[in-house]
Amino acid sequence: MNYYEDLLELRKKKPLVHHITNYVVMNDSANITLALGASPIMAHALEELEDLIKIASVLYINIGTLDRQWIESMKKAGKIAEKYNVPVLLDPVGAGASKLRTETTFSLLENFPVSVLKGNGGEMLALSGKEGGVKGVDSLVSADINIADILAEKFDLTAVITGKIDVISDGKRKALVENGSEFFQYITGSGCMVGSVISSFLGTFKDPFKASIDGLVTFNIAGEIAEKKANGPGSFRQIFMDEIYNMNEEKYKVARVRFL
Amino acid sequence: MNYYEDLLELRKKKPLVHHITNYVVMNDSANITLALGASPIMAHALEELEDLIKIASVLYINIGTLDRQWIESMKKAGKIAEKYNVPVLLDPVGAGASKLRTETTFSLLENFPVSVLKGNGGEMLALSGKEGGVKGVDSLVSADINIADILAEKFDLTAVITGKIDVISDGKRKALVENGSEFFQYITGSGCMVGSVISSFLGTFKDPFKASIDGLVTFNIAGEIAEKKANGPGSFRQIFMDEIYNMNEEKYKVARVRFL
Amino acid sequence: MNYYEDLLELRKKKPLVHHITNYVVMNDSANITLALGASPIMAHALEELEDLIKIASVLYINIGTLDRQWIESMKKAGKIAEKYNVPVLLDPVGAGASKLRTETTFSLLENFPVSVLKGNGGEMLALSGKEGGVKGVDSLVSADINIADILAEKFDLTAVITGKIDVISDGKRKALVENGSEFFQYITGSGCMVGSVISSFLGTFKDPFKASIDGLVTFNIAGEIAEKKANGPGSFRQIFMDEIYNMNEEKYKVARVRFL
Repeated sequence: MNYYEDLLELRKKKPLVHHITNYVVMNDSANITLALGASPIMAHALEELEDLIKIASVLYINIGTLDRQWIESMKKAGKIAEKYNVPVLLDPVGAGASKLRTETTFSLLENFPVSVLKGNGGEMLALSGKEGGVKGVDSLVSADINIADILAEKFDLTAVITGKIDVISDGKRKALVENGSEFFQYITGSGCMVGSVISSFLGTFKDPFKASIDGLVTFNIAGEIAEKKANGPGSFRQIFMDEIYNMNEEKYKVARVRFL
Repeated sequence: MNYYEDLLELRKKKPLVHHITNYVVMNDSANITLALGASPIMAHALEELEDLIKIASVLYINIGTLDRQWIESMKKAGKIAEKYNVPVLLDPVGAGASKLRTETTFSLLENFPVSVLKGNGGEMLALSGKEGGVKGVDSLVSADINIADILAEKFDLTAVITGKIDVISDGKRKALVENGSEFFQYITGSGCMVGSVISSFLGTFKDPFKASIDGLVTFNIAGEIAEKKANGPGSFRQIFMDEIYNMNEEKYKVARVRFL
Repeated sequence: MNYYEDLLELRKKKPLVHHITNYVVMNDSANITLALGASPIMAHALEELEDLIKIASVLYINIGTLDRQWIESMKKAGKIAEKYNVPVLLDPVGAGASKLRTETTFSLLENFPVSVLKGNGGEMLALSGKEGGVKGVDSLVSADINIADILAEKFDLTAVITGKIDVISDGKRKALVENGSEFFQYITGSGCMVGSVISSFLGTFKDPFKASIDGLVTFNIAGEIAEKKANGPGSFRQIFMDEIYNMNEEKYKVARVRFL
């Protein structure tokens, strides 16, 4: 894979990324999508979803601050995306933490095709139906690969489990992305923002496995560079956004991706 | 016009800018209003609109993430503003992109007086009922002037079309503002924030044509200065907010305004 | 009090701070909670409040952009907090400015126990039932102490009145915190963010009086340090977040707290 060429292709195509996401991160998600070179739109009104999604390149659904009204929007949006062959990335924020989140996620997955399901270890574990409890990074990665495989097969999608090491599996192809920054845990919305970045690549290339790797590599390398320049999470957020905008061929050379 | 004196007057009067705006930019809009020296309030509950708008200096309505509930708030807010002679700025975000947005904008324009209608070229074209398709900056400006004139006359207001060159027309008086920054397209909410800035001047001076010029000049010059110091859209946003706060007589000297 | 030890204790316990707050500041509140070392969650759906609040360390309710739906969530959340002995901080944003806000605040105070009620002078005056009108900082502080005492007794809680000098009273114990920054008035959500910080300490220590002092001292000292490095409100916000993250024993030495 040539990550920089992929980024240039994204910037050329400037995919329209329709977001139905949470209140907390809407601003960050719009900003990272723009800094990356794609085009964000945020809209949830039932009456206009079809007008907007039929011209979108990708639909990104994030359940971070879900409620009845928003769940209805998510369901309708997903059906419209299916009708117009628009790929969907689903971010099941907080799945496992409340019954509502777990059940909403399952309900969305049953209602329309999802190309990429992306969550952290806890969320994805909860959706897999497995029991948790492993310790240590190595066994964690093995466990995550196993869970990603289960979810990929169960729901016929590419599963992305973010963590110190990110795991991607579409059931056949598997990869690990080892770049990243400790600061991501000290800012809100890093998971949501990586969702916007993967979605932007998904809207460009349609291949969910490739898009997930492109997105994770871009996001995490920009984070690594920003971390070195930051004095704390406040400056990190700003420098990180600059680095997303300033990615170049040279910077991609530190990519640490393992294909399994 | 003496832009700096106008800014000082704004800071002395500290107008209360009632926002009914979208989820994505609420934080940015509140921050730029404060950095400018005005006072923002964000409230949409039907039960309290009258209590709050009757003491406001100006009402700024932005349909960026509209839905049924918010449209109801916008309508009620506009009627209250009319009752208390509070001027209104309307930002028809996405008009033309969905039927809901176009129709909501028309419905708001029919329901209560609007002092300033501010949108980008595509939005304002859609509202004008004309066909688009011009190419090149010069012919674009001519086209925008024409559209601004049509909207100014049709709805009896000051029309502001933002773009590389901003166009202002109240049907009789016309002006172009040529300052600006390329970075505005890489951050979310620049259109929404300029709405807050124009609204703040509108709340201070009541003259929509003058307020639009004051607002656009202030916003765009701060952007030009910020662009020179920024490393990307992340640092641009922060420096831009500093520059709004730090505007002074000297900085206004680069204003490029043409009265037609 | 040893503020730094208290911060270390907070970081060790990493309290889960359930926020039901306004659209404008959700992002800032989540970020400051993370920068401080606590763990934010933002959720308002009636169906999941019990699942989430029963495992929370503290509930922070802020009525900044209230409406019928959100008021219902706040009421339900408060009752659940009572059931599970989760302490509550209530921020009555805009109380006195609209009947809806004043009445909602009273209704929440009557429906469930509140540990800390935190507002600015105008809001707290409106809730005290007293008439305002004092001038000058000294008489203002005396007036605020009086109002804090009234509210503490009336509602059996710790009252915090923020201002140039912050006043804390639980009816018996009283303290003033004199640190702070002028820049807080030029950014949105400083009141809301201090609410998140006090809540985080409240979730750690359960003593509302102590938590209020810890929170105010930490917040205001970080602000003082950030002010010295900032060029305006834009850079202030970012540096301030860094300083919250970077607080240490040395920095706490400038604390100006008076116990009355």
